[in-house]
Amino acid sequence: MAAGAGDDRRRQEILEATWQLIAERGYHAVRVADIAAVCGTSTGTIHYYFPGKQDVLTEALRHCVQQAFDRQQAALQKVTGAKARLLKLIELQLPKPGNVRSEWLIWIQFWAEAALRPELQPIHNDFYARWHGAVNRLIRRGQADGELRDVDPDEATHRFTALTDGLAIQLLSGAPGMDLPRMRRLLVDFVEQDLAVPPKRRRAAG
Amino acid sequence: MAAGAGDDRRRQEILEATWQLIAERGYHAVRVADIAAVCGTSTGTIHYYFPGKQDVLTEALRHCVQQAFDRQQAALQKVTGAKARLLKLIELQLPKPGNVRSEWLIWIQFWAEAALRPELQPIHNDFYARWHGAVNRLIRRGQADGELRDVDPDEATHRFTALTDGLAIQLLSGAPGMDLPRMRRLLVDFVEQDLAVPPKRRRAAG
Repeated sequence: MAAGAGDDRRRQEILEATWQLIAERGYHAVRVADIAAVCGTSTGTIHYYFPGKQDVLTEALRHCVQQAFDRQQAALQKVTGAKARLLKLIELQLPKPGNVRSEWLIWIQFWAEAALRPELQPIHNDFYARWHGAVNRLIRRGQADGELRDVDPDEATHRFTALTDGLAIQLLSGAPGMDLPRMRRLLVDFVEQDLAVPPKRRRAAG
Repeated sequence: MAAGAGDDRRRQEILEATWQLIAERGYHAVRVADIAAVCGTSTGTIHYYFPGKQDVLTEALRHCVQQAFDRQQAALQKVTGAKARLLKLIELQLPKPGNVRSEWLIWIQFWAEAALRPELQPIHNDFYARWHGAVNRLIRRGQADGELRDVDPDEATHRFTALTDGLAIQLLSGAPGMDLPRMRRLLVDFVEQDLAVPPKRRRAAG
């Protein structure tokens, strides 16, 4: 049991180092030797846990996205109300320097890889479906609670997720005119103007 | 002069082959030998026109995006009215199988490269600014003509472009629930519901 726990710890350590390297240098630039160097171990040890280079790279994408998703869900649980949670989600997803920006650099590469290599699509889509599902449940919950309008919840989910991804791309690729405050404002405006029940109508309905 | 024209033709041929290869196999998988093979020439000939591998890859991205932009602008010129042009633009940009889908595969890789390699950002941003500018002019024109509402034209441009990119990512990465009709509908809905002056108000104003 103790060896199993140690194995698992070492495995996590390798995946952590790998996704950070992918975010920094790019999916195609990372070599197993780089991962071994960061972990202070040999390439043989890396291969003991992950037979091929593709195994460690793919598993690192999965690890990074899973961690981000778990962290976000835990943070959202602390917020009351569907609309407040959507606004919190916007804040949590802004590509601020640090981990969130690095996680976006993983996503942006994941899209490119998934678009070109169909064998990666099931992994990509599993996470995409979780993220889509989380937003979709928030929107339906907000509609049931009378906070959000009776728009088509599936279409609203696609709009919200696509807008988030598209704005993140503009920001990360350094597109002129896009920065964190503008990305935040455009997403908050979408929630307030396209999703939320206007305060007056809410009072009239209540 | 004849030699110059031939040189230019051969150069265009190389760039055309290169961007198609990038769309098909991925930016990092394309080798100069692959380009030479498609063009039926030697790697030496490729290097005569483009000294390094990066030169031909970067120039091919630029070539692809420039061609797509020119083609779109020519098609839009044939349409009268800003709103009709926006709707036409949506149609032109749907990632249908063929050239447009391949061009999107270039964009998606361009974003990933530009996010990781700041030296690519000026090239990316030059094209991004043209595309942003073209949409922005259409929106301002539509507002001046009374077809589109007096929303902030810059914010509306960011929303339209981000939504387009984000939906294309969902489609190209094979995300569940996204297909061409849904992408079209979500973009048309944005123009009709968030940008266009409702028919009644237009009649009242007219």
